Amino acid sequence: MDFAFRRTQGIDAAVAVARTTAMVGFAATSNVEAARRYGLRAAGTMAHSYVEAFPTEADAFRAFAQDFPSRTTFLVDTYDTANGVRNAIEVIGELGLTEPLGVRLDSGDLDALSREARAILDRAGLTHVRIFASGGLDETDVDRLVTAAAPIDAFGVGTRVGVSADAPYLDSVYKLVEYDGRPVLKLSAEKSTEPGRKQVFRGEGGDVIALRDETPPPATEPMLVPVMLGGKRAGPRRNLETARRLFEADLAQLPEPARRIANPEPLEAAFSDALKRLTEETRAEALRRAGAR
Amino acid sequence: MDFAFRRTQGIDAAVAVARTTAMVGFAATSNVEAARRYGLRAAGTMAHSYVEAFPTEADAFRAFAQDFPSRTTFLVDTYDTANGVRNAIEVIGELGLTEPLGVRLDSGDLDALSREARAILDRAGLTHVRIFASGGLDETDVDRLVTAAAPIDAFGVGTRVGVSADAPYLDSVYKLVEYDGRPVLKLSAEKSTEPGRKQVFRGEGGDVIALRDETPPPATEPMLVPVMLGGKRAGPRRNLETARRLFEADLAQLPEPARRIANPEPLEAAFSDALKRLTEETRAEALRRAGAR
Repeated sequence: MDFAFRRTQGIDAAVAVARTTAMVGFAATSNVEAARRYGLRAAGTMAHSYVEAFPTEADAFRAFAQDFPSRTTFLVDTYDTANGVRNAIEVIGELGLTEPLGVRLDSGDLDALSREARAILDRAGLTHVRIFASGGLDETDVDRLVTAAAPIDAFGVGTRVGVSADAPYLDSVYKLVEYDGRPVLKLSAEKSTEPGRKQVFRGEGGDVIALRDETPPPATEPMLVPVMLGGKRAGPRRNLETARRLFEADLAQLPEPARRIANPEPLEAAFSDALKRLTEETRAEALRRAGAR
Repeated sequence: MDFAFRRTQGIDAAVAVARTTAMVGFAATSNVEAARRYGLRAAGTMAHSYVEAFPTEADAFRAFAQDFPSRTTFLVDTYDTANGVRNAIEVIGELGLTEPLGVRLDSGDLDALSREARAILDRAGLTHVRIFASGGLDETDVDRLVTAAAPIDAFGVGTRVGVSADAPYLDSVYKLVEYDGRPVLKLSAEKSTEPGRKQVFRGEGGDVIALRDETPPPATEPMLVPVMLGGKRAGPRRNLETARRLFEADLAQLPEPARRIANPEPLEAAFSDALKRLTEETRAEALRRAGAR
């Protein structure tokens, strides 16, 4: 579930994160505006401050269950997790709550605490009460908990999906590749560029970066396609569901080493022969233009 | 100089970065709108694409110097840095350009290249032509180049000051500390909080976190002060110059270990005795509220 709202850089970013995570497989969002706008499933639990605002933890659970009887998830780690689970069990029994029911762990050793919570729930006959985990999780944490078979039914991921924790800036540059019909390039050490207008052809053998007007290699499709022509959308309208299917198909095309969470091997694109030839010719020409002496 | 415009998260952020860097000691900005708005010095040089758009590098330098004869800085690393410096020298002589003049290095080993550029310029009698350096610099790079006495007269810093490269998200949380007049806290492992409304008192001995209504320790001032009262600004209007002086005074107060670029030692705030007592009392009360069994 997308829990990113409070850490994203602005409200627009939060809504965009909810939409994007829905595309790539998230099941729900805590962002009710995004849920309304895009028809997503909204989900969420109480805050720690909610629990603290009541005379006792059990009072807080009782009040929440009365407000949301058809989807109650108890945040159990405000004071002591095991004790919080026991308070949840007490309130579930007292109010005769039915599914969907859950407890949420938001701190501590989630592997150990989820096993402890599962055991306490199961001993009380509440095998249907689900366990949610959150608290600064990223894909590595989720992978580790899933691999360890921690009894966690759902994960809430916020900060690490809503901001670029591992790539805080987009290291983009613009490079002039053609000017007045003439291919150009930059020769600076470690920053040299390839000249000319480009196309990328994708096929079974991977991506080939080629010149714009080259004949496509057999069984490939061009990645750069017009999306607007004469002020009109060039293709069919795509909704969130189309986007999600497109993402799944693209992901399935990637070989396993590129999809690994730990030490993935990025795909390398090849250059076409025509692009390589143009690069060599333009490099020689650039040296002349530099007035090398 | 602030060169962050093209990497900041939006235009508002770019303008805010220009304003903030001016507060903390930057001499100029490449953001002409921010310069206009806040009365800052605008500065900048040509782009690599500009150089590539001309038949030769010397032609690009000549055209730029004709457009900006009173402040010409030549970007010399598009093709080959040493050769670029020689092209700049040729154009300076040819057009009889006068100060301020500079060359800019944007890639490669800036220590070595700046020494090479300085030597070439000095041999041509151009000891007054300054050397600018840029290219992914952060405070550590600048510190290293200054310590090594590289002959660089000014640094352009962009990405690393305009985005939070080392802290991509603000790890802020809100915690309920008082509800309906009653101090509250959260006991979760590693996430426990201190109850009650607070004040921070700053003095020679460092900061003390205390309860809001405690008597201030001798020779300290409260850090939390009203800035708006009844819808009106509570203090005098502050401009950029006031903010800059305030920053300099605050920085001067920090001990050297806290100001170090490498391995700084953060200041630790102390808790007042009254806050410690309230924390103990509220913790005992919270255990009762948790219904611990």
